[in-house]
Amino acid sequence: MEGSLMNEDLTLPECKYEYLDHTADVQLHAWGDSLKEAFEQCGMAMFGYMTTLSTVEIKQVEEIEAHGHDLESLLFHFLDELLFLFSCDAYLICSKLVITEFNIEGEELMIRCKCYGEEFTLGKHPQGTEVKAITYSAMHIVNEPETNKFEVFVIIDI
Amino acid sequence: MEGSLMNEDLTLPECKYEYLDHTADVQLHAWGDSLKEAFEQCGMAMFGYMTTLSTVEIKQVEEIEAHGHDLESLLFHFLDELLFLFSCDAYLICSKLVITEFNIEGEELMIRCKCYGEEFTLGKHPQGTEVKAITYSAMHIVNEPETNKFEVFVIIDI
Repeated sequence: MEGSLMNEDLTLPECKYEYLDHTADVQLHAWGDSLKEAFEQCGMAMFGYMTTLSTVEIKQVEEIEAHGHDLESLLFHFLDELLFLFSCDAYLICSKLVITEFNIEGEELMIRCKCYGEEFTLGKHPQGTEVKAITYSAMHIVNEPETNKFEVFVIIDI
Repeated sequence: MEGSLMNEDLTLPECKYEYLDHTADVQLHAWGDSLKEAFEQCGMAMFGYMTTLSTVEIKQVEEIEAHGHDLESLLFHFLDELLFLFSCDAYLICSKLVITEFNIEGEELMIRCKCYGEEFTLGKHPQGTEVKAITYSAMHIVNEPETNKFEVFVIIDI
C-alpha cells in the first residue's frame, strides 16, 4: 500500500541503535606443483591479506617449525606459527616462504620453514586486514600426486 | 633463528593463490521506551547499515505486515519484510518506521508497520553494506516492562 504524506510524517525519530562488533572470514585458496609449494603459497596468501606484499623487502630470515598428526593439523599449526611470527614475536611480515623440511609420512608430521621478510612498519606497509585466527572450518587439502593436483583451502577469521 | 641473507634469498616466488568470497556479519542492537519502539529502531538500524539515513528523504510510505509464533520469529519476519521492501519490491530505503499494530499476545503475533522513505538511488544515497540475510543466530530480545527495559539484538549477514 502506498499512501500520501502529511507534515507529521516527515519528522524523524531519535536514533536508539548501534552496531556491535562484526565478525568476518575469508577463504584462502593456494596451489602449487607440490603440496609443499601449496603450503608455502598459503602462508604467503595470509601475509598478502595483511599488507601489499610488493612493499615488503627481504631484510631478515626467521625459521619456524610446525607439527601435526595429520595434514590438516599440520597446515593449521604451520599458519598459526606464521601468524605468531607476525603478531607476537618479531612483527615479521613475510613475502617469501621456503619450506626446507616437509615430513608428511608417519604419525608425527613436521614442517620446517624459512620465512623471509622484514618488520611490519606502518607508513611503509599498507595496513591490510588483521588476521585474528586460523580455523579448521571447511579446511580442504587436495594431495593427488598422480594427477599433479596440490591445493589447500583454509578459512581465516579476520 | 635469524640468519644472514644471500642473493638468491631475495628472488620472489610466483603467486599461486587467491582469496575466495568472504562472509561477514554484524550485530544490530536497538532499544526503546517500548518493545514496539525497539523493533522500529532495529529496522532503522538495518537501513542505516545500507546507506546514510540522513540522505534519505521521506517521499513515500509503504505498509508491511509480519507474523510470528513468538517474539523472535516476529522480529525475524519483520526485518525480512523490510529487507524485501528494499531488495525486491520498491527498492525502498526507509529512514522512519512506525508500527501501527503490535500484537504480541496469543498464538499468532503480528506487526503492521508504515515505512517512510524513498527509492534507493546511487549518487544520492551513499552505498553502504549489502544486507544479505537476517539470522536467528544469538538473537536476543529483552522485554521487561517492570524495569522499562526493551532491547533487541539481531545478527545480520552482510
